[in-house]
Amino acid sequence: MSPATSAARVVVRAGRVITCVNDDAFAGGAIDDGVVVVEGGRVAWVGRATECPAGLHKTVTLAGPHGGGLLTPGLVDAHTHAAFVGSRHAEYAVRMAGGDYEAIAKAGGGILSSHRAIAAASEDAIAEELCARLARMAALGVTTVEVKSGYGLTEEHELKQLRAIARAASKPGLPRVVPTFLALHALPPNVDRAAFVESVVERTLPAVAEAKLARFVDAYVDRNAFRVDEARLVGVRARSLGLDVRLHVGQFADIGGAALAAELSALSVDHVEHVGDDGAAALAKAGVTAVLLPIASFTLAQAPPDVALLRRHGVPLAVASDANPGTAPTESLPLAMALAARLYGLSTEEIWLGVTRRAAASLALPTHGQLKVGAPADLTVWDLPHEAALLQPWGSPRAVHVMRDGVWLVGGA
Amino acid sequence: MSPATSAARVVVRAGRVITCVNDDAFAGGAIDDGVVVVEGGRVAWVGRATECPAGLHKTVTLAGPHGGGLLTPGLVDAHTHAAFVGSRHAEYAVRMAGGDYEAIAKAGGGILSSHRAIAAASEDAIAEELCARLARMAALGVTTVEVKSGYGLTEEHELKQLRAIARAASKPGLPRVVPTFLALHALPPNVDRAAFVESVVERTLPAVAEAKLARFVDAYVDRNAFRVDEARLVGVRARSLGLDVRLHVGQFADIGGAALAAELSALSVDHVEHVGDDGAAALAKAGVTAVLLPIASFTLAQAPPDVALLRRHGVPLAVASDANPGTAPTESLPLAMALAARLYGLSTEEIWLGVTRRAAASLALPTHGQLKVGAPADLTVWDLPHEAALLQPWGSPRAVHVMRDGVWLVGGA
Repeated sequence: MSPATSAARVVVRAGRVITCVNDDAFAGGAIDDGVVVVEGGRVAWVGRATECPAGLHKTVTLAGPHGGGLLTPGLVDAHTHAAFVGSRHAEYAVRMAGGDYEAIAKAGGGILSSHRAIAAASEDAIAEELCARLARMAALGVTTVEVKSGYGLTEEHELKQLRAIARAASKPGLPRVVPTFLALHALPPNVDRAAFVESVVERTLPAVAEAKLARFVDAYVDRNAFRVDEARLVGVRARSLGLDVRLHVGQFADIGGAALAAELSALSVDHVEHVGDDGAAALAKAGVTAVLLPIASFTLAQAPPDVALLRRHGVPLAVASDANPGTAPTESLPLAMALAARLYGLSTEEIWLGVTRRAAASLALPTHGQLKVGAPADLTVWDLPHEAALLQPWGSPRAVHVMRDGVWLVGGA
Repeated sequence: MSPATSAARVVVRAGRVITCVNDDAFAGGAIDDGVVVVEGGRVAWVGRATECPAGLHKTVTLAGPHGGGLLTPGLVDAHTHAAFVGSRHAEYAVRMAGGDYEAIAKAGGGILSSHRAIAAASEDAIAEELCARLARMAALGVTTVEVKSGYGLTEEHELKQLRAIARAASKPGLPRVVPTFLALHALPPNVDRAAFVESVVERTLPAVAEAKLARFVDAYVDRNAFRVDEARLVGVRARSLGLDVRLHVGQFADIGGAALAAELSALSVDHVEHVGDDGAAALAKAGVTAVLLPIASFTLAQAPPDVALLRRHGVPLAVASDANPGTAPTESLPLAMALAARLYGLSTEEIWLGVTRRAAASLALPTHGQLKVGAPADLTVWDLPHEAALLQPWGSPRAVHVMRDGVWLVGGA
């Protein structure tokens, strides 16, 4: 609060503030008529307006809509394939009419379809489309987005896709980007399986690490994707190169991905529609966050993950959009929240923590996704009266002001 | 094309144009590299760019995104309760956790909760909130919105709600509003049932008609709502006063609403999760459009309507948002389209016709919802390559330019 930084001070007041600092009910983390003071891009104070120090609540620079509104941490989308180009609407329509995703993939659709689009696109074009998408995500209240590669498949195109992600990440006015090298997503056409895995481990992964193009490595561990032993090679090498691990696990079948994630001290396992008791126990013991992707299971007409099992073992839960051109052609983390409520039966608290602090923790951002002194000033003001109201399927942007690191991305004073 | 109107001429070119003029596949109504010429607020020409008369394709005033994009009729949302105020998030959270809607309604929640909010609100406040909502709907590509009263319940508050709707309808820069007097929605507290129906028929309905505050009358015909004989009194009186009829039918039980709709020559029956063979036959014979509301059945965790039955009988199908603060807290007709594809199994053609020409026909707007010479120039340009791509659950606005009656509501040249 020193005068030296007062020029950059922003005082935001809203009818209700949720901090997402506390684990249990919002009773401990919700503030009616609250104020957040931002200085130098960080949260300098948060609390009741009437308890604001030095009369700062009288110098409000931004008030919520109609003098009310809801102020929350900026949303954190912990699983996206947002750096895609092209459209897979024809394949989507086939699936809506009863077509099977794994059959479409085997016939050269699915991931390979997006691979062809990425292979044909320039780095510029990929970056431009990603930036437009990130801007639309910001308009929905999102301030941090994990973005995976994985449509390049070959070293050349994976590096191109990751450079496009890096370019979007460096652009001001957009959400923070956390880049992930999705090393094992699908087998490129006409490539020997063992040779592909070896080239990923021995060439592409070191090149990605050397160029600092990714914070995480990821692999798709499933019955029609990659095996545990293949993903292990990638994970072990990634750890040795200083990258953390997240894994696609159990989307269609439980083939042991959860145990591998625990073994590798992965930060997240994502999907987990199919994970058994042993897997859940391993995740809980290793502190691995389960990132749930309800939009994907919805478009695939799948049964939800066994949330009760995950809860019973105490696995931390996050919720993400899975934004991708095939199984989750979406840009909306709020829509994922609405489906998590309706289809997965997650509580308001589980969902909000799962798109803020827990999502951030799974991205190795332990001070993000919460409003507490010293945390980065990522926040969203909603034209809604209560956190439960965002679990409704609005389908329209209800965020009116969105700030990242103290800078307004949307709206603002 | 006379010089006299050329000042108001707008030439829009897009990678793909769907006209929604034809009933069957889009083969007859889709144009690759198409142009729509607008003059004096109406469509003056539509066809292939290369066949454009007088070289007009060289004077394009607005091109789709990246020289491509999709151009369609503006969307028509044929069933909304968008003139609500307040939030029912607490009740929604209870339902997500397993609470029953009809039980909540009986306990004074549901419609009565929104009634209390409307009764306490000024006409100004209702109009202001509706205008903000209509603007968000326009940003989603919607150019016509049916808006029902029905939260006022008493004559005083119904007329207030309808005047607020009329005020929003008269405001420029927003979608066209088609007002409906929802005469029988719920019984007001502490009112005798027969006396209430009589007061609606003898006092409120004539007052609404006299003030020209509604184009339609509506009644909620269901097991915990109103009976067929009650709705008949309202419908017959409405017809005699020059209003057309639309009915909420079969949301929870088939109590004969479809047959009543046919008897009254209603323009639509809405919901129809529960309608039998006789009802469907009656609807088809009378040419009544079934307006499907997938967001409501989704949040209520209901089984879909028997679409195969409706198709077999040849009942015209429309899809609407049902925007309301309880069972469909949404603003997004595109989200309803995505759910109609995934949950109801409607085809791309059925959905698009159901949110354009067929929705418009159910609102007694027979030349709206289609791009043909002489039709009102209501159109939307999407940042998408194909009509099937809007059936994906984007959750973000993919409309980039939206025109109503020749005037841009969103984007524009």
